[in-house]
Amino acid sequence: MSRALDDYAPTPDDKFSFGLWTVGWQGVDVFGPASRSLLDPVEATYKLAELGAAAVTFHDDDLLPDEGERAATLERFEKALADTGLGVEMVTTNLFSHPVFKEGALTANNREVRRYALSKVLRNIDLAASLGARTFVLWGGREGAEHGASKDVQAALDRYAESLNLLCGYVKEQGYDLRFALEPKPNEPRGDILLPTIGHALALISELEDPSMVGLNPEVGHEEMAGLNFAHGLSQALWHDKLFHVDLNGQHGPRFDQDLRFGAGNLRGAFWTVDALLGSGTSKAYDGYVHFDFKPPRAEAADGVWDSARSCMRNYLILRERVQAFRADPDVAAALEAAEVGTLSTPTLADGESLADLRAATYDVEGLAERSIGMEALDQLALEHLLGVR
Amino acid sequence: MSRALDDYAPTPDDKFSFGLWTVGWQGVDVFGPASRSLLDPVEATYKLAELGAAAVTFHDDDLLPDEGERAATLERFEKALADTGLGVEMVTTNLFSHPVFKEGALTANNREVRRYALSKVLRNIDLAASLGARTFVLWGGREGAEHGASKDVQAALDRYAESLNLLCGYVKEQGYDLRFALEPKPNEPRGDILLPTIGHALALISELEDPSMVGLNPEVGHEEMAGLNFAHGLSQALWHDKLFHVDLNGQHGPRFDQDLRFGAGNLRGAFWTVDALLGSGTSKAYDGYVHFDFKPPRAEAADGVWDSARSCMRNYLILRERVQAFRADPDVAAALEAAEVGTLSTPTLADGESLADLRAATYDVEGLAERSIGMEALDQLALEHLLGVR
Amino acid sequence: MSRALDDYAPTPDDKFSFGLWTVGWQGVDVFGPASRSLLDPVEATYKLAELGAAAVTFHDDDLLPDEGERAATLERFEKALADTGLGVEMVTTNLFSHPVFKEGALTANNREVRRYALSKVLRNIDLAASLGARTFVLWGGREGAEHGASKDVQAALDRYAESLNLLCGYVKEQGYDLRFALEPKPNEPRGDILLPTIGHALALISELEDPSMVGLNPEVGHEEMAGLNFAHGLSQALWHDKLFHVDLNGQHGPRFDQDLRFGAGNLRGAFWTVDALLGSGTSKAYDGYVHFDFKPPRAEAADGVWDSARSCMRNYLILRERVQAFRADPDVAAALEAAEVGTLSTPTLADGESLADLRAATYDVEGLAERSIGMEALDQLALEHLLGVR
Amino acid sequence: MSRALDDYAPTPDDKFSFGLWTVGWQGVDVFGPASRSLLDPVEATYKLAELGAAAVTFHDDDLLPDEGERAATLERFEKALADTGLGVEMVTTNLFSHPVFKEGALTANNREVRRYALSKVLRNIDLAASLGARTFVLWGGREGAEHGASKDVQAALDRYAESLNLLCGYVKEQGYDLRFALEPKPNEPRGDILLPTIGHALALISELEDPSMVGLNPEVGHEEMAGLNFAHGLSQALWHDKLFHVDLNGQHGPRFDQDLRFGAGNLRGAFWTVDALLGSGTSKAYDGYVHFDFKPPRAEAADGVWDSARSCMRNYLILRERVQAFRADPDVAAALEAAEVGTLSTPTLADGESLADLRAATYDVEGLAERSIGMEALDQLALEHLLGVR
Repeated sequence: MSRALDDYAPTPDDKFSFGLWTVGWQGVDVFGPASRSLLDPVEATYKLAELGAAAVTFHDDDLLPDEGERAATLERFEKALADTGLGVEMVTTNLFSHPVFKEGALTANNREVRRYALSKVLRNIDLAASLGARTFVLWGGREGAEHGASKDVQAALDRYAESLNLLCGYVKEQGYDLRFALEPKPNEPRGDILLPTIGHALALISELEDPSMVGLNPEVGHEEMAGLNFAHGLSQALWHDKLFHVDLNGQHGPRFDQDLRFGAGNLRGAFWTVDALLGSGTSKAYDGYVHFDFKPPRAEAADGVWDSARSCMRNYLILRERVQAFRADPDVAAALEAAEVGTLSTPTLADGESLADLRAATYDVEGLAERSIGMEALDQLALEHLLGVR
Repeated sequence: MSRALDDYAPTPDDKFSFGLWTVGWQGVDVFGPASRSLLDPVEATYKLAELGAAAVTFHDDDLLPDEGERAATLERFEKALADTGLGVEMVTTNLFSHPVFKEGALTANNREVRRYALSKVLRNIDLAASLGARTFVLWGGREGAEHGASKDVQAALDRYAESLNLLCGYVKEQGYDLRFALEPKPNEPRGDILLPTIGHALALISELEDPSMVGLNPEVGHEEMAGLNFAHGLSQALWHDKLFHVDLNGQHGPRFDQDLRFGAGNLRGAFWTVDALLGSGTSKAYDGYVHFDFKPPRAEAADGVWDSARSCMRNYLILRERVQAFRADPDVAAALEAAEVGTLSTPTLADGESLADLRAATYDVEGLAERSIGMEALDQLALEHLLGVR
Repeated sequence: MSRALDDYAPTPDDKFSFGLWTVGWQGVDVFGPASRSLLDPVEATYKLAELGAAAVTFHDDDLLPDEGERAATLERFEKALADTGLGVEMVTTNLFSHPVFKEGALTANNREVRRYALSKVLRNIDLAASLGARTFVLWGGREGAEHGASKDVQAALDRYAESLNLLCGYVKEQGYDLRFALEPKPNEPRGDILLPTIGHALALISELEDPSMVGLNPEVGHEEMAGLNFAHGLSQALWHDKLFHVDLNGQHGPRFDQDLRFGAGNLRGAFWTVDALLGSGTSKAYDGYVHFDFKPPRAEAADGVWDSARSCMRNYLILRERVQAFRADPDVAAALEAAEVGTLSTPTLADGESLADLRAATYDVEGLAERSIGMEALDQLALEHLLGVR
Repeated sequence: MSRALDDYAPTPDDKFSFGLWTVGWQGVDVFGPASRSLLDPVEATYKLAELGAAAVTFHDDDLLPDEGERAATLERFEKALADTGLGVEMVTTNLFSHPVFKEGALTANNREVRRYALSKVLRNIDLAASLGARTFVLWGGREGAEHGASKDVQAALDRYAESLNLLCGYVKEQGYDLRFALEPKPNEPRGDILLPTIGHALALISELEDPSMVGLNPEVGHEEMAGLNFAHGLSQALWHDKLFHVDLNGQHGPRFDQDLRFGAGNLRGAFWTVDALLGSGTSKAYDGYVHFDFKPPRAEAADGVWDSARSCMRNYLILRERVQAFRADPDVAAALEAAEVGTLSTPTLADGESLADLRAATYDVEGLAERSIGMEALDQLALEHLLGVR
């Protein structure tokens, strides 16, 4: 009963997208140097198209490091896009690798660094717009601290907001069709990173001059490093209309950032992640690119890199099929009703009712306490759909 | 060189406040029943006054369970307040103990439960106002889920917002001088709790009809259970003008909710917590009550309960002294300058400067990369002040 | 393509076993009282038999609290065993609920408590033997500390070893066919529990007078609370010939002890757990009872309790089927060979070879560094078997 | 009341030791390249001597990479040792950086890799012996897996044991005065590392041919990454007579390996760590070198590197002073007695007493349950000694 690889073959309609830095990661970590040779990002683009991706994304430095031959590379890259039909759906700026950003970029204590960081972002906004990207991600991996007194967090948030306001102003002024997406992370490489979770980033956005231009790019592993439920986080981001982009990968809870391929790590979490993205059984769904941000394990050679990339998409398609079957199952509909899940959409106070009415009512507290909620049964149905036994 | 206990004796000006449920915790946990006999909350009020507290707080059920003699108890309690001069600075409603709330209260799937929960809060808002409390805390300990499909998170956030809007409307209508403070927690007792961190709660507040009426009551242990930096969280809450209240205690990182006395657990975190509350070296400070929400370990008998309560205040006073000495030390001022901490308050773009100007500037990237930041030296100064060796 | 419930119906040959305390948990936690009424343990025995269990287990207090009618209950219980054919495969003593054990039992500082604890265990060893149990579990939930100086850990280990030596001596003297299994846990309810992991307990055992009589009863959630790989832990326990018993359940990493039903929580971990128990592709396998130690969520009513219990077994059977298919798949055999997994069983030094020979050899270090390991491909095969798409 | 830096000036009698790789770390991490230029290890040796260290340690590659001028460097290094009086107390082999070890070294699936790893260790054992080192550390940072089926853990433990047996045999054969110390770590850089904790490594050692030659080198951060109490781990290692060496640094619980300077991170844990090393109030103490294994934060320039190194020693000396004062305080002695800490050293069964006697005794269970344990009071004394207010 083995299935062909084609059964879950990706198509451009699936809107799968990969960061060039993912397959391009050479395996450098704190404990060892590169284990794989440099992958030409243009070759990677062709290969990703062949595997079924619809788009690529990159940090400036992945494709066009300052010191390289930018024009020639860009030309080769644009030819690859034309040859393959791939789009560039998102661009981001590397504000974390160069030691100039060692204690922060947009929120560095040093003002020259902040100015340089801002100019680096601006330059890449132009590039993003010229390549047709609609999303510009900002991951502030070095914005944070190891030491209590070394960062005035309130001032840092002022600078974060200042930068975002300036960048939004620039995009509007230029008439670019581009929105920003902040990527939260709790720690690593800094001891504590600013805007550590989806919630903290949403809160910052609410204080900006034009909150509509800035949303989120949450990453599975980043939330799970804080022990948070990623699907819940996605749902809250959707509730705020702020899920502009997403980074899918895998993680095993609070520990170092593993960046496993999607489907590895917390598999049940991945099922609910897909469910949340599809907006199954709720109001708002995600309609952007399904973007993978993973690292093929350092131990893998080049073959493993592509196995890993291919599996990200395949696992998404398997999980999507399973989520759809779960949501279409009449037994599930009955279990959802037994668990009163749909009832939560009914306002607590009826139309025209007063709080005095509500207080005057009598409640069968003991009876309600004893009610069956049937959530284990519902969850078992989900598990069995995931496992493909229903 | 031992110091008398009086050297750090609390006074009402220190604004220390205790939940009656803290010293009243009898030691029931998942693995065993009560280890201590019931403590009369009115007796506890007298005792806390004697120890130096300025105020007490309570859940309705701590003092006035529905089934008890509410009027008589309330009379005794009010006499205790008058006798001792203690205030009731905050009141909260228990929406988590009774099994009627087993799958949620304000966001229960069951609408009757939500209505009952709302009526319970309303009743206690009247009580809070009558006792002069200015803050009403809401901890949604059972608002959450263990199972992916059992809670429509978007609908749950709708109901959370609906409830808060209704409650704010009621307070305004009644003319009460009362604000709400949400208390985030990532998990326990539910597998995943809604509004798991300071950030998520701040984000929800930004969507309310009158955000000015709702702020936060962050708790040390709750943020540290997610591996987050509590002082950073306080600073972000202050930045949003949302630090309405605070719960101090101790925790050892991601694990069960330990509710240790303040000063136990993460001691360096406690130092920076006090620093953040005092707003040392930044713009905004906290000026509310210093509220302790801890559990004397189950193994302790009654003597240990009071030792634990006493130490919470004493440790705060010791840490406050140390923070103030740190911030007043000229060597620290020099180290802060070397680390350019103050520079972060200078806008990145100068007044009147354009982004084009900023982009046209040249940056000594390599020179900046090599700059000394001196943060280890600064942090060591902080540690030595904490340890009292400077 | 939905399957009947019968497809994974348990039989006594599956050797499923349940603690009476699991289905009997009434939902008391730190934040609320019981949500379910008391379940008669004898009734539970009949019900578990009906669901397909082969055996039950219990703490003395679950079935025969000191203050109850021990003789009558025991008689009813033995009738239930006879009626259903269930066995009692394991017995354990509750050394953690009663406040007498609040700061420890076998390692309490107080010697009278230690003596009482020991006498309680001895009494239950007689009971265990009389009921035909072959395994006696010891979980030292209160053996530990919250405070650095309050426990002399070296002395505590002396007392742990003393108790175990005494208990082993007693069993031998009585001629009982009974072995002990220690159950490690890192924390909760104590801040830090002695023998926090599989490894620490194995180490202690190596110092006992008769190590052959004492092994382990590892629990999924307990190891995962420390972020450890449970299947690796099982494998190490098997390697030491010390996997005497096992507790299966589910957990979401470092946080409170969730005791989810088996299959919930870390699903991929559950797959590898079953693989490790079966000893697939390695030397040593587990041949004892498959014991579930979970807590039906407090929110569930009685129906949910039994749904949860039923699902534990069903999930084990599904996973066992998937593991067996994975291990039988020729593609997997090829991938294992590509990853050189079997080669690890070949000694590093050849028979008769000297270390001088080994040092004299030349190694193609760069070539070896570049080798393909193909582990992503292998892992994807495992995932696809788990998901049932192969 | 500020103290001179000299008040806690290290002397060779303090036996402080540093890994050359600590101050030599250039700041390469997963997210960025080196931020500091290469530090000559011989220069570092002089500098560490100047700061007060008594010894240095190194991985072969830190000092003598294969491709470098080994003889000349070694000569310069030996001159530095002679000039400064520093010793080489420990040597270790880097079995984790070169990609040849990407999926393991002594437990790599590939047998050639295992053989090469073993030969690399053997070569460095000779070097260690020639330099007078008495301890040889083995950290198996790449011995582990990300994927369930990719490693046969039982076979891996066979190979681990085989290697250790071979290495012990070699040392005996050569007549070297050298013992091995295993360094456990739960994860990072591998998803799950073999021998993840102190306990697991102790267990392995118990199965070796000559367990007396192999002990442990536990590291603060490695145990705390698993949420474990480091002082408890040290105490268990001492109880087994296996604390051969120690790695001191700082960490903030389960997250990436932070390698903070000693005293940063979990400060109360550091106090109890020093207490455990000193063996205060218990039987067995550590008498080896106090070895620091930390990483000066990547953001620091060279000045920060040395500040960080200096502070490690200074913090140890401050904490040692505080621990000694705590243990010498008569109030502490009284509190220890109240908490019955010393009583734990009394055997539970009296000399000559039988288990039958013990069972025949009557126990005042309720009275014992209510006893005061006074551990909060004791812990507060410890905290106040740590803070220097007593």
